Amino acid sequence: MVCHSNAPGDALRRVPHRGSAVRGATCLVCNRARLGKTSDVRICRDRLLTDLDDLATFGANADGGVDRTSFSPADLAARRWLTQRCDDAGLTLRSDGIGNLFARLGDQQGPAVWTGSHLDSVPNGGRFDGALGVLCSLEALRTIADSAMPLRRPLQLVVFADEEGCYSHLLGSSALVHGFDADALAEMVGRDGRRLTDALRSAGIDPAQATTTTVDPDDVHAFVELHIEQGVTLERAGAQIGVVESIVGLGGGSLTFLGRADHAGTTPMHLRRDPMRAAACFLSHLQQVVAEAGDGRAVATCGRLAVAPGADNIVAERVTVFLDFRDPDRKVLAALEHAIVQRAKACAAEHDVEVTDERGSLIDPVPLDDGVRAAIAEVADEQGRVLRHLPSGAGHDSQQMARIAPTGMIFVPSRDGRSHSPAEYTADDDIEAGANVLLHTLLRLAGT
Amino acid sequence: MVCHSNAPGDALRRVPHRGSAVRGATCLVCNRARLGKTSDVRICRDRLLTDLDDLATFGANADGGVDRTSFSPADLAARRWLTQRCDDAGLTLRSDGIGNLFARLGDQQGPAVWTGSHLDSVPNGGRFDGALGVLCSLEALRTIADSAMPLRRPLQLVVFADEEGCYSHLLGSSALVHGFDADALAEMVGRDGRRLTDALRSAGIDPAQATTTTVDPDDVHAFVELHIEQGVTLERAGAQIGVVESIVGLGGGSLTFLGRADHAGTTPMHLRRDPMRAAACFLSHLQQVVAEAGDGRAVATCGRLAVAPGADNIVAERVTVFLDFRDPDRKVLAALEHAIVQRAKACAAEHDVEVTDERGSLIDPVPLDDGVRAAIAEVADEQGRVLRHLPSGAGHDSQQMARIAPTGMIFVPSRDGRSHSPAEYTADDDIEAGANVLLHTLLRLAGT
Repeated sequence: MVCHSNAPGDALRRVPHRGSAVRGATCLVCNRARLGKTSDVRICRDRLLTDLDDLATFGANADGGVDRTSFSPADLAARRWLTQRCDDAGLTLRSDGIGNLFARLGDQQGPAVWTGSHLDSVPNGGRFDGALGVLCSLEALRTIADSAMPLRRPLQLVVFADEEGCYSHLLGSSALVHGFDADALAEMVGRDGRRLTDALRSAGIDPAQATTTTVDPDDVHAFVELHIEQGVTLERAGAQIGVVESIVGLGGGSLTFLGRADHAGTTPMHLRRDPMRAAACFLSHLQQVVAEAGDGRAVATCGRLAVAPGADNIVAERVTVFLDFRDPDRKVLAALEHAIVQRAKACAAEHDVEVTDERGSLIDPVPLDDGVRAAIAEVADEQGRVLRHLPSGAGHDSQQMARIAPTGMIFVPSRDGRSHSPAEYTADDDIEAGANVLLHTLLRLAGT
Repeated sequence: MVCHSNAPGDALRRVPHRGSAVRGATCLVCNRARLGKTSDVRICRDRLLTDLDDLATFGANADGGVDRTSFSPADLAARRWLTQRCDDAGLTLRSDGIGNLFARLGDQQGPAVWTGSHLDSVPNGGRFDGALGVLCSLEALRTIADSAMPLRRPLQLVVFADEEGCYSHLLGSSALVHGFDADALAEMVGRDGRRLTDALRSAGIDPAQATTTTVDPDDVHAFVELHIEQGVTLERAGAQIGVVESIVGLGGGSLTFLGRADHAGTTPMHLRRDPMRAAACFLSHLQQVVAEAGDGRAVATCGRLAVAPGADNIVAERVTVFLDFRDPDRKVLAALEHAIVQRAKACAAEHDVEVTDERGSLIDPVPLDDGVRAAIAEVADEQGRVLRHLPSGAGHDSQQMARIAPTGMIFVPSRDGRSHSPAEYTADDDIEAGANVLLHTLLRLAGT
C-alpha cells in the first residue's frame, strides 16, 4: 500500500490518500530504507496528517479548536485512541502513576532516546500545541519500526500528563524529574474543582503510584521534543525549522498602586490621588522599559488588572497590575525586574500615590543541550531546510527533562504566531519537514 | 431648659449640654423668637448634634461609618427612630407607596415649602451624606414649631427613599416627579438581589401603592435641601456655606479597545496588538483631555476596567474602560465627550488596535432656582457667613425636585472632601451654621 503523497514515480502517485485505509498498514515508500540508504528514510506524511485530523476530533469544539483538559473525558478518549494507534504500530503504551504514557521501541540495553510532548490542551485551545509533537514522535518511531533498521539504543515515546497545568504546570514531566509526595498530590485541584487523585482514578490509575514516578537519569540518553513555535519568528524569517537555544526565564508578580478613593463628581482633577493614572503611566512606559533593560529578546506583559473599589463613579483607591516578563538570560531578567520596579516607583511618585510590589521568585532560563541542538541543526541542513536558532518564550516539558538528560527542541512555524486558540495552525509541509528532522535527529542520537 | 451653646449671657452658658435631656424638650433659647425678633431665632445646636450621633448608630460599622442601604434592617430602624423624633416634636411622619416619608408643619392652605434629604447610605458610607440634611430640616421645623411664629405657608419635611440607588438612583424623588409603572417597579432588584417589591413589604408598605406617588407641582411652593459638599471647594475657600448653582450634567459609557490575544512569552513586543497599551495611552491623556475640552469645572474618571481574557500570561484581546464625566454646562459636556472619543481613537490608531464606544445618553445639567439661591445667599450674608457659589458635582434628589418646584441646595464643608466613606466629616460649627441658614431660608420662603 502506498500512502506517501510526494512519492517519486507515477505508479506511486496513483494512490495518494489521507484516510483510515493507511492506518497501521505498512507503507512501501516509508519502508524504502529497507531497500536503500538510512538517509533516505522519510516519515509517512499522510499517515501523520490523518492521525492529526483524527486526534483533533477528541474535544473538538464549535470554534474549530479543542477542549482537551487533562483527564477530561476528551483527554481520556484521546489516550485510548493513542493506545490503539501504538498497538497498530506494534508499540505498547503504558502509563505511570501520574498519567505519563510511554511506548518503547527496541529491546537494546542501556539508556533510551526519548521523544514526545503532550496530548492535553488549554480550554478552547488549538489542534497543534502538544498533539503535533506526540504524533510526530509516534510517526518517527513507526517509520523506524517499519524500516527495521538496527539502532544502538532503544527509543521511547513519552506523552507528558497535564503540560497545560489544569492541576499543576508541567505536572507529568515534573513528576518524572523530581516527583511529588502524597501531601503535594493531595492538594492538587483542577480548574473545575476536581482533585487530581480523583482524576487519576477516572483514568484507571491508582493514585498510590503517583509518588513513584521519578526516572533514573542514567536511563535517558537524550530527549527531543517537537512543538509549534507559538510565535512569529520562524514565519517572519521564512524558516521551516527552529532549533531552540533555551527556554526563557520567567518573572512575575504584581504592582499595587495605592491612592485615595474619592467621589468622581465632586473631586477636582488636580486634587485627586488617582492610582489609575499611575498605573496608566507605568503601562504606557512598559514597552520602553523592556527596550531599555532587555536585550532585544525580552518581553513583558500585563494581561490582568484589578481595580478597587471598582465603581464607575468612584476614583479608584487601588489598582493592581499583574505582570509576566521573560528573557533567555537570567541577568537580563533580573535587570528587567529592577527596571520595572523603578519605573513603577517613578510613576507612583509622579502621581502622588504609593506603590508596593509582590514579586514571585525568578524562574531561571533553561539552556538546551549543545549536542542535541547541533544534531537537529545538522539534520535540518542536510535536508535543505531553512533553519533558525531561537529561544522558546513559552514553557515546555523539555525544561524539566533538561534537568536529567541532554535535551533539544524542534520548532515548526505557527501561522501568524497564534496559539492557545482555535486559530492555531501549522502548514502540512512544515509538519512534514519537522517530522523528518525529528526522525533523523532521533536516528543520530540512537546511533545507526 | 437651655440647650443653646452660644446663647448670650452667663446664666444661659452655665448649662450647655449635648444629651438626651434635651430630646423633645422646649429650648428657651431656641424659643426666644417668642420674645424677640424672628431674625434672632436659631436652631438648637445640641439637639441637632445629639440626633446626628443617635442616627449614626443605625447601621454603625467597625470602621466608624454606616451601612444603611435602603430598606435594610438598619434603614428601617432609622425610619422608626425618626418617626419617634417627629412624634416628640409634634410632627406626624407618614410614608408614601415607595417609602418616601413626609411630616407636615402647619395647616395653612396652598402649596408647602418642602425641605429634606435622605436617610439611606452607600455600603460603608459616612454619617453625614443625606442624614445631615434630614436632621437639619427636622431641626429647622422643630425650631419653627417651638417658636410658634405664624407663617403664610405650611412646611413639609421630606425623606427621599433610596437616594443612593440600591434599587434605582434617586428612586424616591423620581417617584414623586414622574412615578413608576408596575412593570418598572417589578424589575427593580437591589444589589443584594432582593426585589424592591419585597423590600417595600418589609417596610410595611403595600407595593400596589408604589405606582401612585407623583405629586402635583402646584402643591410645592419650593424645595430646599441641605447636604455635605462631598468635595473640597468650600474647605479650600474657607467658606462655611455653599450656594449650589446647578447640579452638573453627567456623561458615561465605555470604550473598548480591541486587539489580539497572544502568548505572553512567544510574541515579541513589537509584533503585538495589545489593547492594554492603547487603554494606558488613553488613561494617561485623560487629565489633559479634560483640561483642554473642559472649562475648569469638568471632571472625568475611570474607576473600573475589564480585561479579557484576563490571564497573566496572555496578551489581552480587549480592554474596556468605563467612564464617568461631568460638567455644569451641557455644551462643555458634549465637547468633552467628543474629545474623549477622539483621544481614544488616536490612542487606538497609535497602537494598532480598534476601539468602539458605548455611550450612555448625556444627562443634562440641572440649574437650581435663582430665587431660592438668592434667598440662601441673603440669609447666609445676614448671618455673617463666608459663602461660595458652586456647582454640585454629585447627583441629588434636588435635581428631580427642580423639575416640579423652585429648588435650592445649601452645601456645608466636607473635611478633605471625603464622602461615601467612614472618613466623611463636617465640623459641628459648620453644621450649626448650615442649619441656621436653612432655617431662615425656609422662613423666607414660607413667609413670615
